[in-house]
Amino acid sequence: MTVDDIRAAAARIDGAVVRTPLLPATWAASDRPLWLKPESLQPIGAFKLRGAYNAVARLDERVRRRGVVTYSSGNHAQAVAYAARAFGVEATIVMPDVTPQVKIDNTRGYGAEVVLVPIGQREAAANEIVADRGAVLVPPFDHPDVVAGQGTIGAEIVADLAGVDAVLVPVSGGGLASGIGTAVKALSPRTKVIAVEPELSATTTESLSADAAVDWPVERRARTIADGLRTQPSEFTFAHLREVLDGVVTVSEEQIRSAMAVLARKARLVAEPSGAVSLAAYLSRADQLPSGSTVAVISGGNVDPRLLADVLAERA
Amino acid sequence: MTVDDIRAAAARIDGAVVRTPLLPATWAASDRPLWLKPESLQPIGAFKLRGAYNAVARLDERVRRRGVVTYSSGNHAQAVAYAARAFGVEATIVMPDVTPQVKIDNTRGYGAEVVLVPIGQREAAANEIVADRGAVLVPPFDHPDVVAGQGTIGAEIVADLAGVDAVLVPVSGGGLASGIGTAVKALSPRTKVIAVEPELSATTTESLSADAAVDWPVERRARTIADGLRTQPSEFTFAHLREVLDGVVTVSEEQIRSAMAVLARKARLVAEPSGAVSLAAYLSRADQLPSGSTVAVISGGNVDPRLLADVLAERA
Repeated sequence: MTVDDIRAAAARIDGAVVRTPLLPATWAASDRPLWLKPESLQPIGAFKLRGAYNAVARLDERVRRRGVVTYSSGNHAQAVAYAARAFGVEATIVMPDVTPQVKIDNTRGYGAEVVLVPIGQREAAANEIVADRGAVLVPPFDHPDVVAGQGTIGAEIVADLAGVDAVLVPVSGGGLASGIGTAVKALSPRTKVIAVEPELSATTTESLSADAAVDWPVERRARTIADGLRTQPSEFTFAHLREVLDGVVTVSEEQIRSAMAVLARKARLVAEPSGAVSLAAYLSRADQLPSGSTVAVISGGNVDPRLLADVLAERA
Repeated sequence: MTVDDIRAAAARIDGAVVRTPLLPATWAASDRPLWLKPESLQPIGAFKLRGAYNAVARLDERVRRRGVVTYSSGNHAQAVAYAARAFGVEATIVMPDVTPQVKIDNTRGYGAEVVLVPIGQREAAANEIVADRGAVLVPPFDHPDVVAGQGTIGAEIVADLAGVDAVLVPVSGGGLASGIGTAVKALSPRTKVIAVEPELSATTTESLSADAAVDWPVERRARTIADGLRTQPSEFTFAHLREVLDGVVTVSEEQIRSAMAVLARKARLVAEPSGAVSLAAYLSRADQLPSGSTVAVISGGNVDPRLLADVLAERA
């Protein structure tokens, strides 16, 4: 997966995905001017549409007609459903049977079939459907086409803000961070790319220290409020992360909640906890970050309205 | 004020103002596809920056150096302060002495001097400062350069969605609606331009019926929660509105609150009540609106976080 794959992905997703603007944060520290890249404004509310759409678009038409399959309870599920509908093909989404009804309904709302299985059987169930139907698997992050799609965000940042000093990116499975990192390092080598993750799900931090992808039990990663950041890098994404990241910082749960409130109050953006970690790092971890012009990627906005209401009321 | 003034304004504000994207609302009715134009994402959180920046940019440099003055307690105050700072000139903002401290602080945050006066003396006080200092008045809506700046939104909508059937625009003083209407009617004559206002401040509806700008007492207009829509058209803006509007619809207070919740939950946008009236009309007044593809202008996002928390909690 190289910057050429990202360029090709950009051409494929053009018109189907929102070209999000960089939003200047006029309230930021003057020695570290800040811009936000609001991927929360994508049709499904998260950056995942870029990778899913690129992966579905790249399939041979005869293969695509057999349908696409994925396993996800989150934004990737809706992204694959949305992309499949755009191409007029069937999508089957395998979800854990504990998935909140609202996420099931949203995914069905894009015309996808949802198959509920016990949480440990997600990948196996998806692979079985692939084998039965001859359909194609579009994995959440562990695939070059998906990572290339996410990388288009990095290409847009560099095109809109030449010479940016630092880009802050949420990291979990590593598709977003390795895609953005690959684009930024190829197009603007002196720009620093910093990944951000919750302290309670710090698998990239630990993997970089160990110089190998670590494996935390799912219960340990599930402690964070940032429900989009409860996975961990694969061998494939870790190989990229190790090449393209200049560092990784962690943020606390309280810093994530506080950043959500700042985004709503000062940037008029609804962010989910996972989408707010990059701003949390900017606001709380300045000592661990490069100085100069900074872009924080706000990766998604699919938050429970009650949580957003609580976060706002706490700080009113 | 013609489309040529709007084209000139677009060139002046380029780079200083966010080129907001059209956001497809995938959750909208399929026979009336909807896009949102999120002016809430401008640096000061509202469309007002376009008009204020254009007006300040258009001044002769020697005149501008004497400073700019306005009267406003709302988004226009911050817009003029922001624009003045961008040009390195002084801004003096006259505000009613009942203005909430947060709005005073925000305006001072952009480096402006704030002068507090009794509410009935705002215009007189501003005019006195203009006379004393030789500074220039940048009025909130009753000025061709301000209206031309707001009109750039209409030009962007037509450029991004050729052949759009309807554009829904909040109306109050009429600067936004007459600017957008002038651009849209010149560039896409068959597109319908519909103004939207609160039932409790329905001065455009009444003015169009009477075919003359009516005058409601300020206390009557102040009943609406939409604090940005508590003024009324001037002779200047009404003359434009009468030419360019295809209709005007009103929305209830409850419909405004409900639209705010929909924007946060489904579009991940924080909108102020005034910014949500266009979506309120789309959701609640379909029988009074054109069919086909629709753009709703979300004019601003400067809302009290407690109100947003309440609106979300009520509907969770």
